[in-house]
Amino acid sequence: MRTFSGPNGSLPLPAFLTKAFSTSTMSPKGLTYDNINPHVKEAQYAVRGELAVKSEQYRVDLANGKKLPFDTVIAANIGNPQQLDQKPITFFRQVTSLLENPQLLSKTDVLKSALGYPQDVIDRATRLLKDVKSVGAYSQSHGAPGIRQSVADFIERRDGFPSDKDSVYLSNGASGGVNTLMHVVCANEKSGILVPIPQYPLYTATLSLLNARAVPYYLDEDKTWGTDLASIKSSLHKAKSEGTDVRAIVIINPGNPTGASLPAEDVKSVIKFAADEGLVIMADEVYQTNIFEGEFVSFKKCLRELQASKENEGGKYDAVQLASLHSISKGMVGECGHRGGYFELVGFDDQVKSQIYKFISIQLCPPVIGQCITEMMVNPPKSGEPSYDLYKKEYDGIKEGLRVRANALFEAFKSMEGVDCQRPQGSMYLFPTITLPEKAIKKAKEEGRKPDEFYCLRLLDSTGVCLVAGSGFGQKEGTLHFRTTFLAPGTDWVERITKFHKEFMDEFR
Amino acid sequence: MRTFSGPNGSLPLPAFLTKAFSTSTMSPKGLTYDNINPHVKEAQYAVRGELAVKSEQYRVDLANGKKLPFDTVIAANIGNPQQLDQKPITFFRQVTSLLENPQLLSKTDVLKSALGYPQDVIDRATRLLKDVKSVGAYSQSHGAPGIRQSVADFIERRDGFPSDKDSVYLSNGASGGVNTLMHVVCANEKSGILVPIPQYPLYTATLSLLNARAVPYYLDEDKTWGTDLASIKSSLHKAKSEGTDVRAIVIINPGNPTGASLPAEDVKSVIKFAADEGLVIMADEVYQTNIFEGEFVSFKKCLRELQASKENEGGKYDAVQLASLHSISKGMVGECGHRGGYFELVGFDDQVKSQIYKFISIQLCPPVIGQCITEMMVNPPKSGEPSYDLYKKEYDGIKEGLRVRANALFEAFKSMEGVDCQRPQGSMYLFPTITLPEKAIKKAKEEGRKPDEFYCLRLLDSTGVCLVAGSGFGQKEGTLHFRTTFLAPGTDWVERITKFHKEFMDEFR
Repeated sequence: MRTFSGPNGSLPLPAFLTKAFSTSTMSPKGLTYDNINPHVKEAQYAVRGELAVKSEQYRVDLANGKKLPFDTVIAANIGNPQQLDQKPITFFRQVTSLLENPQLLSKTDVLKSALGYPQDVIDRATRLLKDVKSVGAYSQSHGAPGIRQSVADFIERRDGFPSDKDSVYLSNGASGGVNTLMHVVCANEKSGILVPIPQYPLYTATLSLLNARAVPYYLDEDKTWGTDLASIKSSLHKAKSEGTDVRAIVIINPGNPTGASLPAEDVKSVIKFAADEGLVIMADEVYQTNIFEGEFVSFKKCLRELQASKENEGGKYDAVQLASLHSISKGMVGECGHRGGYFELVGFDDQVKSQIYKFISIQLCPPVIGQCITEMMVNPPKSGEPSYDLYKKEYDGIKEGLRVRANALFEAFKSMEGVDCQRPQGSMYLFPTITLPEKAIKKAKEEGRKPDEFYCLRLLDSTGVCLVAGSGFGQKEGTLHFRTTFLAPGTDWVERITKFHKEFMDEFR
Repeated sequence: MRTFSGPNGSLPLPAFLTKAFSTSTMSPKGLTYDNINPHVKEAQYAVRGELAVKSEQYRVDLANGKKLPFDTVIAANIGNPQQLDQKPITFFRQVTSLLENPQLLSKTDVLKSALGYPQDVIDRATRLLKDVKSVGAYSQSHGAPGIRQSVADFIERRDGFPSDKDSVYLSNGASGGVNTLMHVVCANEKSGILVPIPQYPLYTATLSLLNARAVPYYLDEDKTWGTDLASIKSSLHKAKSEGTDVRAIVIINPGNPTGASLPAEDVKSVIKFAADEGLVIMADEVYQTNIFEGEFVSFKKCLRELQASKENEGGKYDAVQLASLHSISKGMVGECGHRGGYFELVGFDDQVKSQIYKFISIQLCPPVIGQCITEMMVNPPKSGEPSYDLYKKEYDGIKEGLRVRANALFEAFKSMEGVDCQRPQGSMYLFPTITLPEKAIKKAKEEGRKPDEFYCLRLLDSTGVCLVAGSGFGQKEGTLHFRTTFLAPGTDWVERITKFHKEFMDEFR
């Protein structure tokens, strides 16, 4: 990003970026790297960066019979559950098969007797089709009304406070929602948004594209990566003093890449801070069901509780603006390929909402089958319904598998020299600190790489395990990390990491 | 858009936009209409604008038993075939039902005997699943490799020239492709793109969002809305003289909203012009199968022919940069709700392509089920295969229905006073000129509306037929048009328009 103001001051621009800012017009050679949109060049998105591309090549090489030091590639770089053998939930897919081919609904006897489709699958498909007419038709730009109503009902059940379907916007995954919100929030090159560091790089990448400012605030690794209000305040005030018009704060809870899960009091202090400063809260809650310790508390619930409490003197929390995001890609659903999600707006006026509607209408509507899966995620089979037992078994099985692998990884990291890892609390990731020997850091520098990238590249080349270096998410100066998902089945790949790490440390000690 | 330079000089900004440009920071009230991104406010997207929203309300009112002057709403404003009773093609949906629920593939006997699924449906689903693993998993950001290969094979068959899967990028409908390309092409607020007028408003809306310049060139209504090279050149030179860095030209062929279909010689003259001027060509070819007169000739084919011809002295056409877009939303496929499409790049260097890849990776990947339908669109059942006869019957039936309704509308428009319409050649639209009486124009002004909007609003209020006013697409100063799709079944709604028009003319004559 062009300006990266924050607690440590402005970061220097990498050399390849300064080049991008030279005035450029189209040359006789047409569009070249030198004259394309510099903000596209600035955007960094390590989750699908060099390491991911190289791991894809290894996968192809192995398939073509090439000899490598490993026999499988482990994509622990990206939260892509169904690429890693997580099975989709049967109820969802039985329903979507009927949505795709409604002709099957005229053969309910075959569906039930020969294919084992329960009645509630047939009922759900019928109801969803009534709402969308066809999954091949455009819906309203913010999603089919019946599905938005179902999302509002879910939020109401979850939080115990009302929700209105006209404040719910279905989106193209949560990423599509973030893109929409940031486009509307950022007005010009002085607009800034507070972004946690480490963060999911969608946020800084989108701010780069918008030529707006990421205002980083550091999460507190010693408090299991919780929010540190003093740090947030100091980031805000520094950014303001540098002329940044700070407009919003992003909170990722449960955390990505950190795996942290915030208690209600931390959520409430962020809300109070945002109210004092007039900031929009963007609450990325896509991991809300991936919780291993404690329980998830939504920003919406905490906001409504605060508004209803005695603390709300003079209605000082009434005007808080909150956008909460959710997704079908994560949790036990894991349907990322279907690109579904939603955001709920609280405290936004109708004029702003109609501009948001117009913005999303330019891209017409989110995928309708993804909208339907969103409906099923928020309104799954209930106890007593024919699909419930299988649904619950599958859901619990996936959750338990994640917990077991998270703990296996955590234990492995604990045993590794120079590796320090927080207990897994939520989401799909661990984000351990690594302390590398000086010799390794020197070697990385010689190769023109950041030390954590160097480590992850070596790991990939030796073991086929693909992680993402901490620098892809941001980290405090002088610290090194990597992010791993705990989605890949089995634990043999954890042993590959342990073995590699020992050899790496021995080589560079 | 802020700057709208072109043959008629800069257009004045509407009053509500000048307000948007006042310097604004976040107020204590947080995000308001006054301080959101002004470029979002500038963007205009009439296809889903006021008329469309009002028509949705009428639909709800009718469903709730409210008495209106009509008993159905006819959405002739948007190319949304399956909302208007166009049936999806059976082969596509049988395959997607299996992709959604691969468990069914273990019961092929039931599928075949009790549900009538042919063997090629089962084979196709099996092959696609091998490529994507699960439709719930993220694919590569530019799409699953096997599907990109299938698209490349299709382009090769269609044009008789090679195509490379690594130059094919699957997208979120063609709209997603346009968004990607414009983000990369436009470098700053001086960047401009030549856009036909009338145009599909996605183009100017996206340029508004990017704070870049739409450089309009007028299509020639007297030549059935063909391209007029003299007009394009004069637009380019005027824009350049005003300091616009013109980087690309958009061509929509077959035309939207015009329905024009360009002959090969017109395509080639655009390519020669782009080569001379070093412009990227963005060829929007989403209506390539919606052709009623002549045949579709792709930009890619014409470019390769030019490059292979004697005209290519000194290799002057070798460096032409072309991006061709296609979609599953239109044609006889009509699967807009599935958000599938692709673009093929020709003449772009690898550095630019890797920036394009990074840009799309920030939003992860296009919907995987939409990718699979893209594969089936470009590789439908072949003669001799079990699904072929039904596929052909359905495909031809949809095409013939469109042709019949296009001609019925054309004949109706011919008979209407003050309405002048070009013969339908392609796409899904007619875009007649209307000449309104002075009194109507005066009345519109009194209501603060453009005359064509006034007409379309009156039409909607009286008949329930929803069109889009020509001003939503751009039109020559002093001319008035409207766009209608010819997707709505039956022809009674055409009579509603005829009757309304007569009464309207009588009222204001």
